[in-house]
Amino acid sequence: LKPVKIGICGLGTVGGSTYQVLSRETELLSARAGVQLYVSHIGARRDNPHCATADTRVSRDIFDVARDPQVDILVELIGGTTVAKELIETALASGKHVVTANKALIAEFGSELFALADKHGVVIRYEAAVAGGIPIIKALRERLAGNQILWLAGIINGTGNFILTEMKDKGRAFADVLAEAQALGYAEADPTFDVEGIDAAHKLIILAAIAFGMPLEFTRVYTEGISRITPRDVDYAQELGYRIKHLGIAKQSEAGVELRVHPTLIPERRLLANVDGVKNAVMVEGSAVGPTLYYGAGAGGDATASAVVADVIDLARDIAAEQRPQIASLGVAQQNIVAQTIVPMVQVVTPWYVRLEAEDRAGVMAQITALFSDEGISIEALIQKAPSAGESKVPVIVLTNAAAQGRLDAVIAAMDKLESIADEIMCIRVEMLDV
Amino acid sequence: LKPVKIGICGLGTVGGSTYQVLSRETELLSARAGVQLYVSHIGARRDNPHCATADTRVSRDIFDVARDPQVDILVELIGGTTVAKELIETALASGKHVVTANKALIAEFGSELFALADKHGVVIRYEAAVAGGIPIIKALRERLAGNQILWLAGIINGTGNFILTEMKDKGRAFADVLAEAQALGYAEADPTFDVEGIDAAHKLIILAAIAFGMPLEFTRVYTEGISRITPRDVDYAQELGYRIKHLGIAKQSEAGVELRVHPTLIPERRLLANVDGVKNAVMVEGSAVGPTLYYGAGAGGDATASAVVADVIDLARDIAAEQRPQIASLGVAQQNIVAQTIVPMVQVVTPWYVRLEAEDRAGVMAQITALFSDEGISIEALIQKAPSAGESKVPVIVLTNAAAQGRLDAVIAAMDKLESIADEIMCIRVEMLDV
Repeated sequence: LKPVKIGICGLGTVGGSTYQVLSRETELLSARAGVQLYVSHIGARRDNPHCATADTRVSRDIFDVARDPQVDILVELIGGTTVAKELIETALASGKHVVTANKALIAEFGSELFALADKHGVVIRYEAAVAGGIPIIKALRERLAGNQILWLAGIINGTGNFILTEMKDKGRAFADVLAEAQALGYAEADPTFDVEGIDAAHKLIILAAIAFGMPLEFTRVYTEGISRITPRDVDYAQELGYRIKHLGIAKQSEAGVELRVHPTLIPERRLLANVDGVKNAVMVEGSAVGPTLYYGAGAGGDATASAVVADVIDLARDIAAEQRPQIASLGVAQQNIVAQTIVPMVQVVTPWYVRLEAEDRAGVMAQITALFSDEGISIEALIQKAPSAGESKVPVIVLTNAAAQGRLDAVIAAMDKLESIADEIMCIRVEMLDV
Repeated sequence: LKPVKIGICGLGTVGGSTYQVLSRETELLSARAGVQLYVSHIGARRDNPHCATADTRVSRDIFDVARDPQVDILVELIGGTTVAKELIETALASGKHVVTANKALIAEFGSELFALADKHGVVIRYEAAVAGGIPIIKALRERLAGNQILWLAGIINGTGNFILTEMKDKGRAFADVLAEAQALGYAEADPTFDVEGIDAAHKLIILAAIAFGMPLEFTRVYTEGISRITPRDVDYAQELGYRIKHLGIAKQSEAGVELRVHPTLIPERRLLANVDGVKNAVMVEGSAVGPTLYYGAGAGGDATASAVVADVIDLARDIAAEQRPQIASLGVAQQNIVAQTIVPMVQVVTPWYVRLEAEDRAGVMAQITALFSDEGISIEALIQKAPSAGESKVPVIVLTNAAAQGRLDAVIAAMDKLESIADEIMCIRVEMLDV
């Protein structure tokens, strides 16, 4: 058997780890692939001091790797959506399979790239693009193939989960923990991608596309971050038996598919509620299997390299057998991908956590409960807290039964008109995760 | 493309569900497989009232299915290790791929059957054999292929976990819950397989064989059941911040591989500690990915059918492409399977929970602690409880640091000689699951 030759572009954290895993475990990995694997060409603008690449061909121009006729599999680990896209297009056009960890690229340009791969008779694999080392892509695409996927909900951004965990465990404020996460290197200098939910939305659309056989339409994901969550909300949620997690949720309903990333209260006994720190987890409800959950490291060089290398081994097996990989990029052939109606958020039905500040006098509570009941929303719990020193208004927490956002919006609009209730009202969705 | 024809043998709970999933979701499953799937032949001694098989060929002699030249994939769901083995041998010899949920058969005769499949150029798939609908086989075999597996620990028997959960939540006794589980149909009339750990040992050896590329040597698994666990142990464990779970553990160590099924105290904050009722979960620690966890339904018709159907779809893709499936049964080719040294239990090192009854008088505690220290075992916690009414002896709970079983055995032998300590001493291993 001819060895399978791997080209790695990008030698940063993930690229460096991928190179290390492939070099360190060559024998074991080759036994698993059934063919000798080796890294024949690296493309990187600069060396990585942790990688001894003396015996490997290194090009400063990454496109040299994409055009190298000796390379069977191109591993794209440079990130970004411009040069990376061009690089992958070049590799596909020269008949190479591609493995990538690039969620933004797959989320935004996946449909186009998958079609291009099809055209050239090769495939793109991207296990590492969602939830790092957790094998959620393959699980959804191949192992739950006997199921209609009813819904999935995931903690798919480690930085956001780290921040919420610290707020819960230590009562710290969002901005304070964010600054620490940046100092520790968990969060980027520009944290928007992580804390405003864009990174999670990228991952969610990839999961949804596989789960529902729909196109990768990233812009259709509703995205809400965690920056407005206060330590008080975290505390009140705990008092009520809930945790606040930043979830990506994709759900099949009669009206279509819900695609949403937002902070969410979930019951404290659920496994997802107990996934803390930088860890990720995805829960998937299948029609036959019921609920399943996948947990692990969602980021980090070695964990992500684990997913990259798994994709490389899968491809190497087919290359060695001179077979074309048979599994379509999204689990079903391009011609079977069907656009889905996306449910507008005003129609999405969930229970709600509502925190407001109201005047502490007779009649105000009755006023509040009447507003909810006017919109047909029933109240599961209502708690009035003691006022802070010198405050005339008291915090009131309302936990509702399931109601469409449109109805809650009407309640909030009515509250805005009342002098007895302060302007700032916090609304957070609740998911029971038990259907 | 020619449709792929499936023969199902056995139409009990799992067989019936498999037939239903394949019939109900034909269109979706065929889109995922990229080829039309249909059940062309059923072998069952009797009809299943939940399955409308009027349009399907049904044979009372299951061997008719195994010999049917029209069948591409034989699905063995009759269970047992005699007829099922013969059936699979017949199917392999007539060039059919096989899908099975039969853990006992794979655990006891897998090596022989895999070799036979190799000889005939076909494969045996068995995702459903371990942890029902949880895709742990494929995760281990293909998705963690870039890792050395350091250890895995799983709750892989739902009946046992249901019993322990009821004991914890309701303070009930083992025998009492077992009787209920039998009445509910969770436990077999002969519960030995479940509660004495044999079923878990079957699953553990399958996981270990894949994880470590070793032969399926079922008899080398140390197996200890949960029937001796008392409600008091469950309570004391909780007081100390632990839960008792029945775990299957496979661990790579310098001395070899540890293969063991036994009740285990684990810290209450671990995800595995919060897997309750009939659910299963497996935690796997990989060299690159770190800890990962897979959770879901470990039994039940539909959940198991989910795994069976996933295997069918994988095979159907290759059959349609007229390709030979490239993934070896255990993830590495037969010639790369290497026997491992199994670490004798006396050498296995874990912390211990020890419960004994001692006379409540000066000097006895000192005697007890001296016995541990004589064997070089340090004590993490020692709790003396109030005596029961009319008892002269008091319960004493000792939590030790890590110590080989051989050393603990010496302590227990010394205690047996003391009049101040009652004969019956309960020892349960502790696993921190954090390495």
